[in-house]
Amino acid sequence: MRVCVLGGDGYLGWPCSVYLSARGHQVLTLDSFIKREWEKKVGSEPLAVVKSLEHRIEAWRTLSGHDIAFRVVDIANEPEALCDALATFQPEAIVHFAEQCSAPYSMASRVHAVETQRNNVMGTLNLMFAVRETCPEAHLVKLGTMGEYGTPNIDIEEGWLEVDHKGRRDRVLYPKRPGSFYHLSKVHDSANLEFGCRIWGQRVTDLNQGVVYGHTIEELGDAPDLGTSFHYDATFGTAINRFVVQVVADVPLTVYGRGGQTRGYLNIRDTMRCIELALLFPAKRGEFRVFNQITENFSVNALAAKVARVGNAMGFRARIDHIPNPRVELEEHYYNPTYTALRDLGLEPHLLTDRAIEGMILHAVRHRHRINVDSILPKIGWA
Amino acid sequence: MRVCVLGGDGYLGWPCSVYLSARGHQVLTLDSFIKREWEKKVGSEPLAVVKSLEHRIEAWRTLSGHDIAFRVVDIANEPEALCDALATFQPEAIVHFAEQCSAPYSMASRVHAVETQRNNVMGTLNLMFAVRETCPEAHLVKLGTMGEYGTPNIDIEEGWLEVDHKGRRDRVLYPKRPGSFYHLSKVHDSANLEFGCRIWGQRVTDLNQGVVYGHTIEELGDAPDLGTSFHYDATFGTAINRFVVQVVADVPLTVYGRGGQTRGYLNIRDTMRCIELALLFPAKRGEFRVFNQITENFSVNALAAKVARVGNAMGFRARIDHIPNPRVELEEHYYNPTYTALRDLGLEPHLLTDRAIEGMILHAVRHRHRINVDSILPKIGWA
Repeated sequence: MRVCVLGGDGYLGWPCSVYLSARGHQVLTLDSFIKREWEKKVGSEPLAVVKSLEHRIEAWRTLSGHDIAFRVVDIANEPEALCDALATFQPEAIVHFAEQCSAPYSMASRVHAVETQRNNVMGTLNLMFAVRETCPEAHLVKLGTMGEYGTPNIDIEEGWLEVDHKGRRDRVLYPKRPGSFYHLSKVHDSANLEFGCRIWGQRVTDLNQGVVYGHTIEELGDAPDLGTSFHYDATFGTAINRFVVQVVADVPLTVYGRGGQTRGYLNIRDTMRCIELALLFPAKRGEFRVFNQITENFSVNALAAKVARVGNAMGFRARIDHIPNPRVELEEHYYNPTYTALRDLGLEPHLLTDRAIEGMILHAVRHRHRINVDSILPKIGWA
Repeated sequence: MRVCVLGGDGYLGWPCSVYLSARGHQVLTLDSFIKREWEKKVGSEPLAVVKSLEHRIEAWRTLSGHDIAFRVVDIANEPEALCDALATFQPEAIVHFAEQCSAPYSMASRVHAVETQRNNVMGTLNLMFAVRETCPEAHLVKLGTMGEYGTPNIDIEEGWLEVDHKGRRDRVLYPKRPGSFYHLSKVHDSANLEFGCRIWGQRVTDLNQGVVYGHTIEELGDAPDLGTSFHYDATFGTAINRFVVQVVADVPLTVYGRGGQTRGYLNIRDTMRCIELALLFPAKRGEFRVFNQITENFSVNALAAKVARVGNAMGFRARIDHIPNPRVELEEHYYNPTYTALRDLGLEPHLLTDRAIEGMILHAVRHRHRINVDSILPKIGWA
């Protein structure tokens, strides 16, 4: 299959390009490298050095014999270049990771909020028009986030909700309560994409992904020439990465607020498989299909306890601290998301086992000389 | 009350500024005049010449003795100028009309879609941040549209919906099914604004307005120095204005498709009163309040028949033609919106009487030499 991966320099875009290429798909990846600029701006550095995309593509070719094609395109600002790339490559599917991906970044200031929504919403709009113009049959697989839903007091369904109201019934887009300007940008994207399916017959799978953990996939291993990013700082890091690095740095694991915040999680290996499944079983023409891409749920407290326990078994002296929550969010809430669609297509989850946590801790040990504990504590508040 | 009106040069922004000023409020209006550029771009001209805003402000001062303050500010692109204006004026309320307001315009091309969403969403984001920074207690009255809801198969509520789902209950933003990139921009605005209320305690009233008709309000009368715009072309015009002009031009009234499309309508005089009521009874801190701002519903067929009947009684020879629908929309559907909140606050509706239609037809007669029938037929298709 000819697959275009947008955002191929990123944490998931790079492994996704490799994973698909390893399975014999023809991959073209586009990236503008703006994420690397954003990281510099906020002083975020991945735990291990991430080689340039060119370097990694070359290393992958040497290792595997597979080519990954590549173009520098900024989809938010270069719609013509995007059209040109798609017209030439004629993808059967497009996997769209090319968005600003940090909630705290989007909350830092007006400039950051506007930049995030402009980049993400206009980029996706440009993409919709480019597909319509150059490859209208292509299946668009768009990365969304479980955070779009927020924490409603009813079960979270997969994108759509059957509503009974005053004796009548309709199937509607699931009503969302996103928690940051970043999450809102994804909500806007989803609304625009559903419209494209309805009006133009586009085919879209919106993957509302949970928090992804894991520093590598099988194809990449721990080769320094191939590795993807692992962020643990307050802006681009995740809670689990932060805890892992804090264990190794011998500082307290910092839980925001009371720690009852519960979210869906999934292993980076499962992310790859989910995308593959979406590609193998594409949305129909005119279908706006939504999958909740998670395999299990944890509260922040449970996550911290898990990482601390594994760390201690490895000889570290992990301890947990509660710090004021920089976010505005419920710290105790109902959370019951549905996530059966991808299982029904064949996903076999790799859960957050002690072994998986151990692997991440060992990654942090290997790169402990690069840990910058000052970058971990939150500086951006929501209120 | 100190009220800042954004988009004070527009069809409703200008009468709103005058209406509030006539009632003793201190009005500052901001406009970038970009709407006039958009009109030129698509060859749209209002039926009667609309004098410059400066000219009209001067004419209003001469007539009434009331001052309307004015600054040229582009809220989508000049966030600092917006902050400066609000910081100096310290409004107690802001009425926000400053958006690209045409569905067909937004559907013309990628450039138009992106321009519409960028202008509207970024403008409103800039406004949220400006309010937060300079006048956090100000009540923001935002013009939305009934078109955000689309035509669901359940009753349309006022912005929020009580959902019972699998034995649990929540109050959620009403799920929307907008019909153009313009309508989507307003949906995105509403989502951003609800977040601002939830996170920062902003106070917002989102007025989901139906199609407004009427060429003037009492304070403006038919004075050529004061008049507001009346668009009847395919891009910026409304169906009712189109029918009125077609009656006078002695060409068939063009109904799109089967004509069963039903929408909510309201008189321009009621728009003014609704905004006044929203200002007099403001949203509470942290409240995202939504009113459906309509007074009655008509199908396009019913509307065309009504205008034709009044026209014929005035001696015209009105006849109705069905033309292919340029839009993608249901032409027969359920439609039952709730609109009691503004009535509960004291709105006394002025309905679409024969007299009201007569007034618009007479307006078209007075300016019949300026009618350009070529501008009426749709050139922009949805599909």
